[in-house]
Amino acid sequence: MLKLYYRPMACSLAARMALMQGGIDAEYLPVDFTTQTSLKDGLSFADVTAKKRVPVLILPDGSKLTENAAVLQYIADLAPGSGLAPAADDPGRYRLQEWLSFVGTEVHKAFLFPYFRPETDDDTKAILRDRVGETVAYMSKQIGDAFLLDEKFSVADAYLLWALLLVRFTGIELPDNLTDFLKRCMAIEAVAAAVAIEREEMQSFPPRT
Amino acid sequence: MLKLYYRPMACSLAARMALMQGGIDAEYLPVDFTTQTSLKDGLSFADVTAKKRVPVLILPDGSKLTENAAVLQYIADLAPGSGLAPAADDPGRYRLQEWLSFVGTEVHKAFLFPYFRPETDDDTKAILRDRVGETVAYMSKQIGDAFLLDEKFSVADAYLLWALLLVRFTGIELPDNLTDFLKRCMAIEAVAAAVAIEREEMQSFPPRT
Ligand SMILES: N[C@@H](CCC(=O)N[C@@H](CS)C(=O)NCC(=O)O)C(=O)O
Ligand SMILES: N[C@@H](CCC(=O)N[C@@H](CS)C(=O)NCC(=O)O)C(=O)O
Repeated sequence: MLKLYYRPMACSLAARMALMQGGIDAEYLPVDFTTQTSLKDGLSFADVTAKKRVPVLILPDGSKLTENAAVLQYIADLAPGSGLAPAADDPGRYRLQEWLSFVGTEVHKAFLFPYFRPETDDDTKAILRDRVGETVAYMSKQIGDAFLLDEKFSVADAYLLWALLLVRFTGIELPDNLTDFLKRCMAIEAVAAAVAIEREEMQSFPPRT
Repeated sequence: MLKLYYRPMACSLAARMALMQGGIDAEYLPVDFTTQTSLKDGLSFADVTAKKRVPVLILPDGSKLTENAAVLQYIADLAPGSGLAPAADDPGRYRLQEWLSFVGTEVHKAFLFPYFRPETDDDTKAILRDRVGETVAYMSKQIGDAFLLDEKFSVADAYLLWALLLVRFTGIELPDNLTDFLKRCMAIEAVAAAVAIEREEMQSFPPRT
């Protein structure tokens, strides 16, 4: 069985959405970032991954796959026909990769990651908010009436949904069509269930200090 | 013929390396970021891409592909057997995606992009240098005697090579084995030629103000 190292409401939530939407069994192992420990198996997080970042997916052969863009494509390929990704040799796959990269670089790494670091001061936060304003405007222009690639929810939508939930959490107001996108995603049973599990778990999870 | 919008020594250099190494013809269109104009066809850069970022690859059907991770995989797939990427359905492909994501998020977006923005002050630069120190140490631990995936230079190496050239440009000293990696890449004729073209062009290119 696959294992996913995660922290509640961190970017690894996208992998949980994909696993649940794809009907794929997995064991979920929460990581406490403050103590750098994996709470279920007691491992030091540095021993799980030298990157000290979630997501980490343990594959059936015991090897480890990291990075959302890679982990999400791996999971999607386990559920062909689910709509989670175009087939690996379908031209649509490049569009999926384009969105995964955009969310990973421009929303996650350029904004969310530095924004939530304790060492980031208010001036820097203002610059970050300004920059992400352009990114949000761009996404609002691109988004249609359905999902990023198609009529079906893909792993790119999963990653974007997670990112937008966190962007909203910083107090930035989303344009109506992005809020509608959030609602469309949350209307999918497995997706809503994945978010609900981690929101619930967050209530009593050790805060990051 | 493919067209690549680029700026000399920007991240689009990785796509040029891949095109040249794969023996793929392309037209190269330089963009002036200050005036936001594509110098060869006179187009406003915003009309080329609402993202206002390079690389932008114009595909044979006229559609546009952006984001290094997607552009590089597309180019690699045009040259099967070149070693630029494992086949789309080969498990090694996830390792390629993992490295592309790592370079794109942790080196490019987390460090290089903010570091070179005019609005970034010295305190923030110090935080960024500190963070990238961990990233460099991680890469130094991972790098072997050959290339990231294998004996052959792949598009992940192209992206990492570009990133390391720029990291070095910020005055950060690289560990010996990463300097050796740079040298191994630069010993490849097509790769060295791609870098030489853009270094030369940079000399007389309008600076970004
Ligand atoms: N480049 C990685 C980034 C992963 C990442 O930044 N994960 C965050 C959570 S959203 C993390 O693990 N942070 C650890 C920490 O803050 O200590 C990817 O795209 O997967
Ligand atoms: N997420 C994009 C980022 C591309 C990017 O940041 N490109 C930079 C050059 S390295 C750029 O075009 N910057 C425009 C500017 O600074 O005005 C990708 O991975 O391709």
